[in-house]
Amino acid sequence: MSAETVGGLGEKALLERIFPRLGPVTALLGPGDDAAIIAAPDGRTVISIDTLVQDADFRLEWPSGYRSTGFDVGWKCAAQNLSDINAMGATPTSLVVSLTLPPDTLVSWVEALADGLAAAVSSLTADAGRCSVAGGDLGRGRQIVVTAAVTGDLAGRSPVLRSGARPGDIVAHCGALGLAAGGLAVLESPQSVINMADPGKAEDQELAGLAMAQCRPRPVLNGPAAAQAGATAMLDVSDGLVRDAGRIAAASGVRIDLDAATLAERAARLAPAAARLKADPLSWVLAGGEDHGLLATFGPEAELPQGFAPIGRVLRGTGVTVGGAAPSSVGWDHFGG
Amino acid sequence: MSAETVGGLGEKALLERIFPRLGPVTALLGPGDDAAIIAAPDGRTVISIDTLVQDADFRLEWPSGYRSTGFDVGWKCAAQNLSDINAMGATPTSLVVSLTLPPDTLVSWVEALADGLAAAVSSLTADAGRCSVAGGDLGRGRQIVVTAAVTGDLAGRSPVLRSGARPGDIVAHCGALGLAAGGLAVLESPQSVINMADPGKAEDQELAGLAMAQCRPRPVLNGPAAAQAGATAMLDVSDGLVRDAGRIAAASGVRIDLDAATLAERAARLAPAAARLKADPLSWVLAGGEDHGLLATFGPEAELPQGFAPIGRVLRGTGVTVGGAAPSSVGWDHFGG
Repeated sequence: MSAETVGGLGEKALLERIFPRLGPVTALLGPGDDAAIIAAPDGRTVISIDTLVQDADFRLEWPSGYRSTGFDVGWKCAAQNLSDINAMGATPTSLVVSLTLPPDTLVSWVEALADGLAAAVSSLTADAGRCSVAGGDLGRGRQIVVTAAVTGDLAGRSPVLRSGARPGDIVAHCGALGLAAGGLAVLESPQSVINMADPGKAEDQELAGLAMAQCRPRPVLNGPAAAQAGATAMLDVSDGLVRDAGRIAAASGVRIDLDAATLAERAARLAPAAARLKADPLSWVLAGGEDHGLLATFGPEAELPQGFAPIGRVLRGTGVTVGGAAPSSVGWDHFGG
Repeated sequence: MSAETVGGLGEKALLERIFPRLGPVTALLGPGDDAAIIAAPDGRTVISIDTLVQDADFRLEWPSGYRSTGFDVGWKCAAQNLSDINAMGATPTSLVVSLTLPPDTLVSWVEALADGLAAAVSSLTADAGRCSVAGGDLGRGRQIVVTAAVTGDLAGRSPVLRSGARPGDIVAHCGALGLAAGGLAVLESPQSVINMADPGKAEDQELAGLAMAQCRPRPVLNGPAAAQAGATAMLDVSDGLVRDAGRIAAASGVRIDLDAATLAERAARLAPAAARLKADPLSWVLAGGEDHGLLATFGPEAELPQGFAPIGRVLRGTGVTVGGAAPSSVGWDHFGG
């Protein structure tokens, strides 16, 4: 591994190191001009933006000894952005990425970030040849900040909003629940509990798997299938199940009641790992963010698309309940408010 | 002014304070869901991304005593992004904005940033009712980072790339040259030279004007007019005239010779201010970034659109010359390479 830094290399040479790692350009016009051009075949473009900040969203060295790689950060940046497009029922078509880097950042770390972006795009998107990194921006700062804007195509369909849930609808979920929160707890544990710099022991493998769910989330991009199956409301669970269910409830003017037994069963799967970390697995399931699963509502007669499991009911009223009662954990606010 | 901080207010309440300041939503779907939806009437979307970082691109307190306001930073973020779309010959259609904020950032500063974004969009775009902030993202960090992705519409035209300049073309420029660099020198001067916290003296007004050119650039968004007039190549001068002219030269496989007398005349206008700051005004003109003027090439018979003035010639060869000789200053690299 080279100890070359981005400050030593300069902007133009760094871009020349990044571009070849991003894979084939699928945009109508890719990197290299003032802007990129993306196809928008149905006359609309879905767009979202999301940011990862060093020491807020990831650490270069965690208390457990794990070091977030550039690959991790590139992967996660792509995954969480692709997930936002998916949650509208759309298919991702491009990413544009802005990197803010301290001058002492290793060039090898940035190359790995480009690899992680490209790997997530090609691994997670079903139609891998369609979406790619179409452009970007480089600048200097005191900490690493990675922002991507992502575009998508609805293929003529209506978007699935947060506001369409109706009393009587089924609440369904697809993807991980609580794994990324468990992984965060693993990464934040002291090395005396688990040494993630050397997770050799068999009993550590499960914890290492949770850490990977945090560092490299794998959202299932079946939002278009959910839209075609008649989803009435949908979002990406990024800030915790209860908090995000509350967003559908508020936008739709309904109450969402989550099924206590289903959530307890999800928590039970995480109980051995949680016991080692002296954590409550149900709080991971209810309040853990960053899993980037899909939470959607469907009419009572709908056939749930592959990957979705029922997890609750839409009722008249407001707010979120679990088995009819107030939830024990809420979810994530970026400023702790 | 309230001393309320974003850390005290929380994410949801902060968004509720920002949204009403962004003006009417012109997107097909605006803020509030996982993603926004923008019209793309000709089946394509132009997209770019650009970032402003505290202490790299602006300071909360400059050596001169000036404090960059939230309005300044919001304005500049919008202006430089709109300029990238303009430089393709396209019309801006939306911005999505990601804010990374230290928890002790004042809410009033962020409100002013939203005001600055909205004001730049409505002041700079000719078709003000068409473009607006369509969505965003909020997060926590050690310094303020503001990233916007911007979309645009080519209205069925071909984009104007950097690669289309041909020997014999006229090189023309529209907008400010060296003003933002002069403003940077003003802002970075000690208070003993100019106290920008109290620029009361008449002789300071010119310097204050340069500082405003740095803090609130006003690009002329006539890229579509240049495209219609037959521009063969075009870009936004963000990193300095010589460096950006070099990008057209490299992409087009030509030499660009800038007219020494024209540049000297531009520098002469800045000479009184430069003298006070003991700076070389020609280096501001040749190498100063962030003016966000348009540099374009046109066939020899073309009628230059309003606002453009001839500034050089496209020749066979490579690189950039000024009156046939090597330029005395080059331009800006984010990592000093």
